[in-house]
Amino acid sequence: MQEHITPERTGKIIEDALAERFGVTCPVDPALPGLEELACIARHCVHRRFLPRPVDPWLLRLLCACALSAPSKSDLQQADILVVRDKAKQSAIAALIEDMPWIAQAPAFLMFLANGARLPQIAAMRDKPFPNDHLDLFFNAVADSAIVLATFMRAAAAVGLGCCPISAVRDSPEAVSELLDLPERVIPLAGLCVGWPAEPSRMTPRLGLDVTLHEDSYRKAELAQQIETYDRRRDATRPYARQRSPERWGRAAFYGWSEDKARQYSEPLRAAFGRYVRAKGFRLD
Amino acid sequence: MQEHITPERTGKIIEDALAERFGVTCPVDPALPGLEELACIARHCVHRRFLPRPVDPWLLRLLCACALSAPSKSDLQQADILVVRDKAKQSAIAALIEDMPWIAQAPAFLMFLANGARLPQIAAMRDKPFPNDHLDLFFNAVADSAIVLATFMRAAAAVGLGCCPISAVRDSPEAVSELLDLPERVIPLAGLCVGWPAEPSRMTPRLGLDVTLHEDSYRKAELAQQIETYDRRRDATRPYARQRSPERWGRAAFYGWSEDKARQYSEPLRAAFGRYVRAKGFRLD
Repeated sequence: MQEHITPERTGKIIEDALAERFGVTCPVDPALPGLEELACIARHCVHRRFLPRPVDPWLLRLLCACALSAPSKSDLQQADILVVRDKAKQSAIAALIEDMPWIAQAPAFLMFLANGARLPQIAAMRDKPFPNDHLDLFFNAVADSAIVLATFMRAAAAVGLGCCPISAVRDSPEAVSELLDLPERVIPLAGLCVGWPAEPSRMTPRLGLDVTLHEDSYRKAELAQQIETYDRRRDATRPYARQRSPERWGRAAFYGWSEDKARQYSEPLRAAFGRYVRAKGFRLD
Repeated sequence: MQEHITPERTGKIIEDALAERFGVTCPVDPALPGLEELACIARHCVHRRFLPRPVDPWLLRLLCACALSAPSKSDLQQADILVVRDKAKQSAIAALIEDMPWIAQAPAFLMFLANGARLPQIAAMRDKPFPNDHLDLFFNAVADSAIVLATFMRAAAAVGLGCCPISAVRDSPEAVSELLDLPERVIPLAGLCVGWPAEPSRMTPRLGLDVTLHEDSYRKAELAQQIETYDRRRDATRPYARQRSPERWGRAAFYGWSEDKARQYSEPLRAAFGRYVRAKGFRLD
């Protein structure tokens, strides 16, 4: 697709994307291999609107196999992917989540699962004790599933598909578990809408690298000032279309990212998630 | 680097890699865009031996910026990267972890951090309540940091660097936290060795797609048989060089993945990790 783009041009695309993302760019050496892949990573956007064109099952399977080739903590392979092919199940999941019509509309819908079941099962199969039923089992399964999700999204973007992760499936974890027959110690990380993008999507600016990239020691200073700078930079290209809960918080003269996130998390969210995780058999000691 | 490889050839490389990984392959349409990226994902291997060639700081920064462009749950951006430039700190971390000399030897060493601190800080800055100090905050920070780690590893592989994630930094989380000045509610997900590979690495076969890839419902049946099949398939190309704890478990006539993992987790590991996470200020209710 991009055969005729010179490395210099691809390098410039990456530099421009990072400048838009972080407010400063990183110089790119056009002699580096893999620039097209870096450009794809640097320009990541979420897609929620899709063409009415199906995603071939063989392609989904190929992307899942690529995703499941991702690194895994101690090779324990504690992640699974579940493809929701049954449109009635997809609609049932969509019905659990208000305000996200793209879930029902997505040509393909997947669920990424953290699997803490297999390791104790293997211990039992091999007739060994398993004195590790504590937070680390849960932590590793969550991390493995997140790595598989991220890798799937990279593979999908490479072939031109768009994705939108749906962590809101964890707002109704029992209902989702029942619908998909999830056994003990297998829990959803996130759903994923997948399809051919109906329109170009926009990148989201991110916190400055002076906030999230550290050297030798974690840098704590000046967060308030850095967040204010980010709020303003982000507003210049991606202003919020509406303010959250104005009936509770009024109308802000300037409405930035930090105000939006503070309002979003001023309401109790997923307070029952820990209870669900424990009921599913994970011990978090 | 790969300009002269035809799409058909790249497709075949992917098919062969997935066949080696999963025991069955997925057909690849050579007309798909992004095949080189899929080939890179499908052929993922860990690298632990590096050339004595430094990784330029500007390149590391570019890769970190790409990684921090990864998707983030609700745009909360709960991950940080810390580059350990100080060789004394890198050696101190290596000294905490027996049997992994590649940590001290890696030309570059990074730490990926789950950050549950910023969100409550933002709530305080914006003068909002934060009634969400429970498992979901921890979960989302861990998932975000794992997504950033996976994305960094993709970007690094694209430019030809090799990586080895080190989750064993969580065996000594207090010491690592102190060394890197990690504040309340910021914890390590994993370290990462990065460098120019000294030698080609070998892919690790994975559990069959009939174990980890599901359709519509989680498939529970026949795990013992599937694990046995995987143990044998894996042994054919990647036999274990040594058996773990023979003084406790004896010498197995056939020593496969499941026996190795069952032996590995027959010892208590990271039992104190939950205590550390709670002491760092996370609530896991």
